[in-house]
Amino acid sequence: MRILVINPNSTVTMTAQIGESARRAAFPGTVIETVNPKGTPASIEGHADEALAVPAMLELIRAGEARGFDAHVIACFDDPGLAAAREVARGPVIGICQAGVQVASTIASRFSIVTTLPRSVPIIEDLVAGYGATGRCRNVRAVNMPVLALEQEPETCELRLLHEIRAAREQDGAEAVLLGCAGMSDMCDRLQAQTGMPVIDGVSAAVKLAEGLVGGRYLTSKVGAYDFPRVKFPQAAG
Amino acid sequence: MRILVINPNSTVTMTAQIGESARRAAFPGTVIETVNPKGTPASIEGHADEALAVPAMLELIRAGEARGFDAHVIACFDDPGLAAAREVARGPVIGICQAGVQVASTIASRFSIVTTLPRSVPIIEDLVAGYGATGRCRNVRAVNMPVLALEQEPETCELRLLHEIRAAREQDGAEAVLLGCAGMSDMCDRLQAQTGMPVIDGVSAAVKLAEGLVGGRYLTSKVGAYDFPRVKFPQAAG
Amino acid sequence: MRILVINPNSTVTMTAQIGESARRAAFPGTVIETVNPKGTPASIEGHADEALAVPAMLELIRAGEARGFDAHVIACFDDPGLAAAREVARGPVIGICQAGVQVASTIASRFSIVTTLPRSVPIIEDLVAGYGATGRCRNVRAVNMPVLALEQEPETCELRLLHEIRAAREQDGAEAVLLGCAGMSDMCDRLQAQTGMPVIDGVSAAVKLAEGLVGGRYLTSKVGAYDFPRVKFPQAAG
Amino acid sequence: MRILVINPNSTVTMTAQIGESARRAAFPGTVIETVNPKGTPASIEGHADEALAVPAMLELIRAGEARGFDAHVIACFDDPGLAAAREVARGPVIGICQAGVQVASTIASRFSIVTTLPRSVPIIEDLVAGYGATGRCRNVRAVNMPVLALEQEPETCELRLLHEIRAAREQDGAEAVLLGCAGMSDMCDRLQAQTGMPVIDGVSAAVKLAEGLVGGRYLTSKVGAYDFPRVKFPQAAG
Amino acid sequence: MRILVINPNSTVTMTAQIGESARRAAFPGTVIETVNPKGTPASIEGHADEALAVPAMLELIRAGEARGFDAHVIACFDDPGLAAAREVARGPVIGICQAGVQVASTIASRFSIVTTLPRSVPIIEDLVAGYGATGRCRNVRAVNMPVLALEQEPETCELRLLHEIRAAREQDGAEAVLLGCAGMSDMCDRLQAQTGMPVIDGVSAAVKLAEGLVGGRYLTSKVGAYDFPRVKFPQAAG
Amino acid sequence: MRILVINPNSTVTMTAQIGESARRAAFPGTVIETVNPKGTPASIEGHADEALAVPAMLELIRAGEARGFDAHVIACFDDPGLAAAREVARGPVIGICQAGVQVASTIASRFSIVTTLPRSVPIIEDLVAGYGATGRCRNVRAVNMPVLALEQEPETCELRLLHEIRAAREQDGAEAVLLGCAGMSDMCDRLQAQTGMPVIDGVSAAVKLAEGLVGGRYLTSKVGAYDFPRVKFPQAAG
Repeated sequence: MRILVINPNSTVTMTAQIGESARRAAFPGTVIETVNPKGTPASIEGHADEALAVPAMLELIRAGEARGFDAHVIACFDDPGLAAAREVARGPVIGICQAGVQVASTIASRFSIVTTLPRSVPIIEDLVAGYGATGRCRNVRAVNMPVLALEQEPETCELRLLHEIRAAREQDGAEAVLLGCAGMSDMCDRLQAQTGMPVIDGVSAAVKLAEGLVGGRYLTSKVGAYDFPRVKFPQAAG
Repeated sequence: MRILVINPNSTVTMTAQIGESARRAAFPGTVIETVNPKGTPASIEGHADEALAVPAMLELIRAGEARGFDAHVIACFDDPGLAAAREVARGPVIGICQAGVQVASTIASRFSIVTTLPRSVPIIEDLVAGYGATGRCRNVRAVNMPVLALEQEPETCELRLLHEIRAAREQDGAEAVLLGCAGMSDMCDRLQAQTGMPVIDGVSAAVKLAEGLVGGRYLTSKVGAYDFPRVKFPQAAG
Repeated sequence: MRILVINPNSTVTMTAQIGESARRAAFPGTVIETVNPKGTPASIEGHADEALAVPAMLELIRAGEARGFDAHVIACFDDPGLAAAREVARGPVIGICQAGVQVASTIASRFSIVTTLPRSVPIIEDLVAGYGATGRCRNVRAVNMPVLALEQEPETCELRLLHEIRAAREQDGAEAVLLGCAGMSDMCDRLQAQTGMPVIDGVSAAVKLAEGLVGGRYLTSKVGAYDFPRVKFPQAAG
Repeated sequence: MRILVINPNSTVTMTAQIGESARRAAFPGTVIETVNPKGTPASIEGHADEALAVPAMLELIRAGEARGFDAHVIACFDDPGLAAAREVARGPVIGICQAGVQVASTIASRFSIVTTLPRSVPIIEDLVAGYGATGRCRNVRAVNMPVLALEQEPETCELRLLHEIRAAREQDGAEAVLLGCAGMSDMCDRLQAQTGMPVIDGVSAAVKLAEGLVGGRYLTSKVGAYDFPRVKFPQAAG
Repeated sequence: MRILVINPNSTVTMTAQIGESARRAAFPGTVIETVNPKGTPASIEGHADEALAVPAMLELIRAGEARGFDAHVIACFDDPGLAAAREVARGPVIGICQAGVQVASTIASRFSIVTTLPRSVPIIEDLVAGYGATGRCRNVRAVNMPVLALEQEPETCELRLLHEIRAAREQDGAEAVLLGCAGMSDMCDRLQAQTGMPVIDGVSAAVKLAEGLVGGRYLTSKVGAYDFPRVKFPQAAG
Repeated sequence: MRILVINPNSTVTMTAQIGESARRAAFPGTVIETVNPKGTPASIEGHADEALAVPAMLELIRAGEARGFDAHVIACFDDPGLAAAREVARGPVIGICQAGVQVASTIASRFSIVTTLPRSVPIIEDLVAGYGATGRCRNVRAVNMPVLALEQEPETCELRLLHEIRAAREQDGAEAVLLGCAGMSDMCDRLQAQTGMPVIDGVSAAVKLAEGLVGGRYLTSKVGAYDFPRVKFPQAAG
């Protein structure tokens, strides 16, 4: 089984870190490959960054299917272009926010999410609402650091994450915490160990769900909304 | 007051038709200009088409603000890239679905929507849910014709629209009908005259709201989610 | 274009202040007239006050249509009798809460509301829910002053509003603030200037939407719930 | 225990019929008195009719409390002025729609409602939503007859009710049916007998809940939204 | 009229206390009998405790109907097995959470709940959501004491309840408070007297609703979900 | 990895069929064992059947954990006792309805469910609501056959399933169909082949998710609602 994990931003060090987390999560027989588009924003911090990353990401998925990948993971917690990706793919496409929410909803009755910047909070709230988990998600918190600061100041970030995870437990009544950025995936185990709280990394969650969907021979439905994009009749375009 | 109406697809004849509807709706003193990006899909029929249209559309908005436009209208009923557009713009950005839903919610207690292809039905349902109008929207119907067929077979399209509008009234209990595609805007008055139902065209609705927002000196909030996209620190990108 | 702005309470000084705000917001060619019923409560602070104000308000709307007004604005943030008003009117009727929510939902992804008394908080929450904006409305706050105190102690009120607007930004994560009482409309610009937050006055918002609806030739649907009240068969009434 | 059942419309024959149903439902020791205001619409068929009935109804409740009634029932399925009535009353005030929904939610997992005119359907849907029963309410149906026709053509009405109740069972999957007009209360037993479906009359339901609330010494909370209307400071009113 | 009040846990002292509250609430002519199953958990503190209590509780209801009881009350705030109980019973079955929520929704526009352990908070939130009262329920609070501690340390419990009720009023904006455990029922009157807040005990509320349902001759619908359990064809069971 | 698949009813032939489906879905290295309790109902057709099956099922899970199983699957589409099971287990517990809904929400934007008896429809609707998928679930259909008839009249059942799946596509706009009973799992592949619709069997879906959760070392959170049941202080129980 071959899974292509796509980091939609163009920061190669982050792609590498995501790849390590993904491979650590995978079953022994699973081949994980990672890739990021070129020319997309260095980090995804808002809707405009998402929009600029998606077209190149769709091309990587098309190419991935042509190269025989069985499933694709979009390794950005905003799940950018997830529905569009399902249109272009025959196999399953997993977003790390949706995957993390599904895992959290299976092991806990209430959870909180901790992300990077406050501006991403409404974006994640809306995603969670779309996944039907508003009632289970106690709070979306932010450490108030940009995405790339996760790499540049990892110790500060980890301290703030510890603080927010503890606050999620004590103030929110959360029973598990979902890390709200792919760039946090390498801290997951330490955070869980230090807080005694179940901490969920979306990258790992998505890899496990992707393996399951491929193993179960599930394909993206081509009836209705996720059908392949329509080829247009030739037309005078200006 | 100057409003830029953007048709996100690349079909110039549709841009022209949208421009006529927009100008017909505008106050005498309002300058309406229309534009469409080059190289985007000839029509927007699904999430992937949307994704491919948004980056160029964002550039048009940036350029539009530089050229002094006071507000922008996105003239595609999927409201593609609406939140991203609000991030890049200082002035208001209006989506024709959101505008149509706001007008419909003001003149009727229940409404239905008629769009082109069945695959767009869940997309519009999700938009309507995001705008909080699920309880007011009785049904999203489809004439089952591609977007560009509106121009190629206008009579067939109009007959099917008449049929669906009447069904919306009789079967759904709709009190008004919202046309679910910018390409239908030139049929709006005839459909209303023939059915006796209030029929709302999103392009016209968006122009009126844009004029009101500019006239009221409302700007897009730059506190939080719609703040300008963050400039990234220089970074090794691959 | 002629718009009648109705203050449903009977306090003429408040009507005058509302009129100033409405005229300041209107386009040059728009004729704004204001009126308040006689004998209704001096302020609207709860459901019973609303109920006592509505019958006279409906008469003013009927008379307004007879006098040729194109649209009516109900200038009380509880939107009292809004649906009833739409039944008696052929033209559009705009409530300042619904208008404010629509504007806020267009320029911000999350907003808070600041009203007068705590007893109005659930009323406004229910209105916001009915307009489908529960997910976008972070909080409904109260300065804990009666409506008429806005006129009697304007400085205290303004200080408390400043405090609540800042709290909305910092504690609620609001990106804009909607003033929850028509009597606050004259403070809107100063509050915005002092806080750097977009502050929305419902009276101004309603005037702009009313102009747009009239300009777009939208009429209240007479199919279904907003049809004119039925004339009853003569009947033995006791 | 003394309960005042108020028919908000001015049709005395309907008041009499409601009184019979209420007395038939009451415990032996309960004193039921009925009353209707004078000068209100002959029937309540929409928001404007409601609005015109409420002020006089509030006066009847104030007078009822002064005369020692322990609880009040508003015998119109739109629950007109229910929140306002709770503000003016110290004792409980029961609306027949809320009461009927509570009973239906206790004896069935899904129910439908059958009302008079189609224009009342959205009104009732919104009430049901406010009572949190949207998920339990399968459908709101209408026999398409005005309220007063229930008295004038009782046989036609009963036939149509039978038809709709059977359709509710077979097409909606309803497990019980709630009659959506106080004027239908005298048909309830026959409809239940003929259809084998539990049929709930809101007037009877409200009487039973009122007895329970009085018996349990529950009073309307005067903390917050249902506090007595505020007395206004003297003010220049025009 | 005869009502059987079932305490699903096996603690006889709690059954006795519940019985006193139930009898105090009942009308003079109502016969209240109480019972608890043997061998069920000593208290219900979570889903597993609920599950272990339900089968024996269903047997008590079957036996209760055979002995001629007109209605049954399940005196545990988690409403354990409520739907199952309605399947086995011909008469009404009332859960004290549903009853308390119905009473609270009638006398107040917003309420909070105070329960025993934090682990019960999500359970009660989910119940409240199922009863459609999420928008009316401000908060579910916990005194952080096990159920049986209510009997063992009644003074500590009462002090903590006082604290939470006051916090519900001041911090939540609650207008009434619902006690979230049958074991608190004997403190209800004192808590109300000391706080000036309407305090609702679910046991008393359920008794009053049960009397009303029996008095109104309502039976559990046997059409659909609450029909009697199906008798299975004989089958090889292993 | 060892997964225990529990059929909560006592029909051993159904347990065998479920086991075949589960083993067919599992990865080569996964050990699947199946079991059913003794003395529980021969099929689960309603809340009472569920209630009678859960205590024995919880014992099987406790025993399963003692025997070293890594995860448990509850193979009944009502997900009976799922939260209770999570309290008693350290490892993950998967319900086939929740698993099926998660898979359906990943490969399709809209789906329908087909179950056995109409009485199960509201039960499944409520489960789907609890999992936050009401907006994605178009319809819950029933073939109107008891659970055990799936074994006794498999051809009739399969014909009716084909009919309902096609209706789900054409009338509901479903893009995938979820089989609403564990007893249907052996028909899944044929139904998919004959209809061209993605058809999802909850047993297989649950096995794949269970493997993923075990592989990802996820455990049930013991913070909050899913903590182990509390051990009670010794108490006089009657």
